[in-house]
Parts: sequence; structure tokens; C-alpha cells
Amino acid sequence: MLNEKMIALGTERSVIRELFEYGNQRAAIVGRENVFDFSLGNPSVSTPKSVNEEIIRLCREEESVQLHGYTSAPGAPGVRAALARSLRRRQGLDVEAGDFLLTCGAAAALTSTLHGLCNPGDEVVVLAPYFPEYKVFIEKADAVMVTVPADIESFQVPFAALEAALSERTKAVLINSPNNPSGAVYSAETLQKLGELLKTKEEEYKHPIFLLSDEPYREIVYDGCVAPPVPKFYADTIVCYSFSKSLSLPGERIGYILVPGQCALHDQVFAACAGAARALGYVCAPSLMQRVIARCSDETADLSVYAENRRLLLEGFRALGIDCVTPGGTFYLFPRTPEPDDLAFARRAMELDLLLVPGSGFGCPGHVRLSYCVSTDLVRRSLPVFARLMEHYR
Amino acid sequence: MLNEKMIALGTERSVIRELFEYGNQRAAIVGRENVFDFSLGNPSVSTPKSVNEEIIRLCREEESVQLHGYTSAPGAPGVRAALARSLRRRQGLDVEAGDFLLTCGAAAALTSTLHGLCNPGDEVVVLAPYFPEYKVFIEKADAVMVTVPADIESFQVPFAALEAALSERTKAVLINSPNNPSGAVYSAETLQKLGELLKTKEEEYKHPIFLLSDEPYREIVYDGCVAPPVPKFYADTIVCYSFSKSLSLPGERIGYILVPGQCALHDQVFAACAGAARALGYVCAPSLMQRVIARCSDETADLSVYAENRRLLLEGFRALGIDCVTPGGTFYLFPRTPEPDDLAFARRAMELDLLLVPGSGFGCPGHVRLSYCVSTDLVRRSLPVFARLMEHYR
Repeated sequence: MLNEKMIALGTERSVIRELFEYGNQRAAIVGRENVFDFSLGNPSVSTPKSVNEEIIRLCREEESVQLHGYTSAPGAPGVRAALARSLRRRQGLDVEAGDFLLTCGAAAALTSTLHGLCNPGDEVVVLAPYFPEYKVFIEKADAVMVTVPADIESFQVPFAALEAALSERTKAVLINSPNNPSGAVYSAETLQKLGELLKTKEEEYKHPIFLLSDEPYREIVYDGCVAPPVPKFYADTIVCYSFSKSLSLPGERIGYILVPGQCALHDQVFAACAGAARALGYVCAPSLMQRVIARCSDETADLSVYAENRRLLLEGFRALGIDCVTPGGTFYLFPRTPEPDDLAFARRAMELDLLLVPGSGFGCPGHVRLSYCVSTDLVRRSLPVFARLMEHYR
Repeated sequence: MLNEKMIALGTERSVIRELFEYGNQRAAIVGRENVFDFSLGNPSVSTPKSVNEEIIRLCREEESVQLHGYTSAPGAPGVRAALARSLRRRQGLDVEAGDFLLTCGAAAALTSTLHGLCNPGDEVVVLAPYFPEYKVFIEKADAVMVTVPADIESFQVPFAALEAALSERTKAVLINSPNNPSGAVYSAETLQKLGELLKTKEEEYKHPIFLLSDEPYREIVYDGCVAPPVPKFYADTIVCYSFSKSLSLPGERIGYILVPGQCALHDQVFAACAGAARALGYVCAPSLMQRVIARCSDETADLSVYAENRRLLLEGFRALGIDCVTPGGTFYLFPRTPEPDDLAFARRAMELDLLLVPGSGFGCPGHVRLSYCVSTDLVRRSLPVFARLMEHYR
């Protein structure tokens, strides 16, 4: 009677959400401080002070009809111009105000882009490990998700497998670097090779293959690692960005689609994304937050807590013999499980009130994801629990 | 190559937007004060002071990780509980926190509901005159829009025509009272009869027909007129609401879907809407604004400017012999044009820098829409221009 697929999507609880609820139940029994909940990717550091200061300033000084009113559909012109200046300066990209379409976060950026680009049966290639909602977004746009198995040695791009996954029907390749869940940051070398492969395939198929770069974690990098700007390595790149992680305001739903001038069919791609955003019910991105990011887009929340948590966990894992690729970014670690069944491992961890997300949900079994956007104290106290967990495997 | 429908939606400029741009061009030539722009439905009165005060208080007093963080997908529990209390008290509805799904405005509420309810080929019945985006939203959900011609004597429901439009394939009837563009408010008598008709048809077809009540103008009513709460007249009602107009913050994208407990398949309908919102990329409604409406949902912006504008225009029209149904609400008037061709009439008005939207776009030719959310001074000075326009028709 109703749309069964939508009922299923609204009913099924994600593994992550289940773990989170379980954590809350356990917290009521054993105390919050005794639950080591590494399940949720919710930023745990405050927004930069400037964000709240700017909100307050705008509410005090700006005319409310303007401040809270509709902006034009792709965003307020001044905000789009500020973003273009920021990316020209920080990433050296040749972009203009008119290349930006402001969105209600990265999820809206992805769905608007996918619905704009895809016709029924088009294929979108995704590299494991991947954010599970990609499948939901791609299939809702009537496209087909084609998965490339992970290179678990480095979590960079497994080129032979990627090449095998490309076909005449490939509309886009969707990448996410810095990556959720592995934390991996694609190197300039990886991106160079990726750009070359896609260019060759475009010539072979005689149509564009768009590279969708989903990069909400771009600014969250460590040890001098930098996420190279993807459009520099491949012309037909479309960037989907969110300020959720960099400014710690995931609930405010503010991000953008960037279609650089170099992109094939630029005007049509931009129009298609805008048309899809319209048809999906996105009228404009939240207006007050548009104004805030115009001022604060160059800043980040204080990432030093994440850096310290990462250091402690990587050192602890090394001492315990937990095998984990050292990632360049995000607030996730994605260690290999000491038994192939990541679900069994995660269940065993749960018995110790240690909440880890099985890698299977990310298309990468034999691993678990830890979100270390938690307090450093919790991280410290979790290490003996990891030690107890690993005792099972000696 | 790309999705042609989405390109078209992103490229075509709406008549309203064209008029608005034309108005800006003319303003540069003849001066802003000499352009009588009644084209855009943008609230022109400030938000209540309490909105900005509450934003500032929240930014000062609340912990930023919570305030700007993700809420659960259907909204923060406390906000949903506050909305339920508000509607129980103000509208006498038997609703609970769990019946509310907070959305990024009414457009998102409509698209999420339509995608949740509809399967390909389902019919959604819409009564003219109607908001033009309904067609875009319905067709994107793979459903078919069936239009009922307007009752131009009253802009209430033309029951014979509605009955003729209903069929086995009717999934929903979409109403909008107070109505954009006519301003009409459905009376209790109209809603009573509508509820009875739909109930009879449900029994005949042996499946629910959902009544989608799109009501962002609910609070904008005049002369003691009240918009009766629709769920009181028909069990299978789903309400789509936005705070855009009542609180004058259309850019902030905050509204809700309400599925009252009495609604057929309640849990499935709610899950389907939630699943669709998820698949369309709506993660949660903007978190700061969720908190604001929890505090301010019972208030409205100062509507006295609208009331005065409406009075002046209706009196002026009467004096000039412009035929206009006196509407109970919104900030629109929808007079009959003195020639059947509303496009020709609107063009003639344009020559006098009087910007009116032809009724054809709302499925109701022979009328034009005026948005009187403008300054009262502009309304006053527009009356002699209407007089000059009407001289053509003597």
C-alpha cells in the first residue's frame, strides 16, 4: 500500500544506532563512565568560538527579514563569493561564486548530485570501505551501486579492481578521502593515477565519468598530512562538502556542491544538481548558517583532542598487537579484527562494554570502526579493556 | 547524458522569478519606489523578537556540541514533545511527541511524505488553484498529479469535480488551506463534507486515501477567521507544516510532518516518511532552529501590516470594480482579470511597473496573484496604478 522500500529504510535501525542505544542501556546499569562507546561519528569538540559569536552578531545587527529570509536557490551571492575566494586561496582552485550550490549538508549535496546526474540503470562506482548511506542515496536515484573491494594494506585505491568495475554504464565514481571508516587520505600519487585512469576510460567510452569527491573530513588531518584538492587531478570532479565536521555543527545542515568551471558539461551539471535539489524539496540552505560559514569557512574546531586520542589509540594498539593501518585523517580508526568474523569480534567487545562497529556494514569485513571523537579520559581508560579483549585471541 | 528532467527543472525560470528579476531591472531605471512588485511570497515583517533572543540565549548558555550536534532523525525528543503540547492546547488535537517528524521546511515535509506514500503510477489529487511546485514534487515521487478545476466563486472545494477525480489509484488528496494563491480558508463545513466524501471513497476502494494538509499559512488569518484543524474532520490526515510564514523565517528551513495517532497505518506511514527523508538526504532538521521553535511555536510575527494591506487593496479593488473573492487568510489576493487572458493582463500591468503573477501557473487562468507582503506605503501608491490599468478595460 505504501512504499515498502521507504518503510524498510524508516524502520531498520542501523547497526551504529543499535550500538548507541545499547550503550545508553548499559550506561544506566554500569554507569556512563564504564561504557566505552566508540560507535557514533558525532564531533565531540565545540564549534570555534567565532561561530556562536557570528550567530549572535548577525541576530543583533542584521535586518531579520533578510537574515532569516529565503536566499536564492543556490545560496546567497555574497556567501558563494566568499567560498570561492576561500578555495582559491586555500586550495589554489580556479573556481567562481557561480560554481557553488549551497546545500543542507553533504548528504543533500550527494543526493542532489546523484539525482541530477543519473538516469535509471546508470552505475555509480564506490570503493570499499564506504559510508553505508551511499547505497541508500544511489539506489533512491534509480542508479546501481558497483562496489570495488578494499585494498586493506593501505586503504588507497585498488586500481586493477577499480578498472574492472568501470564500464560503459559508469556515470560516476564516488570517493571519500579522508575516508569514513578507514581514516585514509588519498595521496597526490593516488589521485594522479586515478585521474589518469578515468581520463583514459572517458576517451574509451566517449562520455564523461564524473568523480564525486565527498569530503566532509578534508580539514581533519594529522602529522602534516594534507588532503590534496581533487579537482587538480581530474577535470570532471564534483565536490560535495559539509561544514559538519570542520566546524563541529553537524546538526545545522550546511554544505555545498562545487562544480568547477573545468568540469565537462559544467552548466548542465550545475543546472541538473539545482533542478534535483528543487525537486527533492531543498528550497535553499539554512540562511543564518549560510551567513555564518561566509565568515567562518577558513576555521576549524580545535582538533588537538582528536590528535591526542588518535596517538593514544595507535600506540595502544601497537602494544597490544592490534593490526591497524595508520590513517592520515578523520576521527576514525579501522583496525583489522584478530578473527575474520568482525561481527563476532564486535559482539565479544560488547560483552566488555566496548562498542565498536563491524566493518561488514562498510563493505569491508574483518575490520571494526572506532570513532574516537570521545573524551581523552575515556580513550585512556579503554586501553586496558582492549587488552582484556585481546586476551581471548592469545 | 545527464538527467534531462532535472536539467530542465534547474534551468527553467519560474514566472515568479522572472517577474522578480524584471522588477529589479526596472528598479534600476525608474527607482525602486516606482516598481509595484507584488510577485514574491516572501514574508515582509520581522520575526518575533523572541526568536532572535532565543537564538542568542541558546548560543550563550547551551553546550555547543549539543546545540549544533545531530539530533535523532525525526527531531530532538524535547522539541517534538513541545510541539505535541502546543497542538493539543491550541488545536485540541490528540497528538503525541512520537507523531512529529521535524523537517527542513514544508517542502521537505511534502517530498518526504510523497516519496514515503507513493508507488509508481499512484495518483495524488490537487485542487486548483495550487502552488506550482506540487507538480514537481509529485512527479519526482513517480506519482501522477490529477487536477481538480477551481471553484472560482468561493475557492472552497468543488465537490462534484473532486469526486470525479478520485479513483482506485488515488493515494492522496493534497489540500492547502489557507491557500496560496487564493487566500481562501476552508470552512469547517467544507472540511466536514470533504472528510465524509473521502471516508465513503475509502470504503468503496477498500484502502486508505490520505489527506495531505499543507498548511504553512495556518496562522495568517483575518477578521476572526480561523483555519479549523483538519485532522478533526478526517482520520487519515497527514499535516505538513512550516514555521516560515508564521515566524517569518522562510530561509531557516524548519517545519514538520504530523501523522496523528488516528491515521490509518500510523506506524507504517511514519516509518515511510522517515525512510523517505533519509533516502532523500535529510539527516535531521536544522538543530538550532529545532530548539528555537520549541520555545516560539505559539507565537507569530506581527501580522497587522498584512491586515492593513489586505484592507486597503480589497477596498481599492471594490472601488475600481476589480472582482476579487475576499479571502480569509495568507498574504495573497487572487482577483479575476477583466479579460480572460491573464497572461495578457499581467503583461499590460507590467507596462505600468505593476508586477502580478498570472493565475495560469496556479492552474487557474483568468486570475492574477498579488503577494501583499510589501510595505503599506507601496500598497497605497499602487492603487492609482491599478486605476490606470483598469482604464484599458472601460
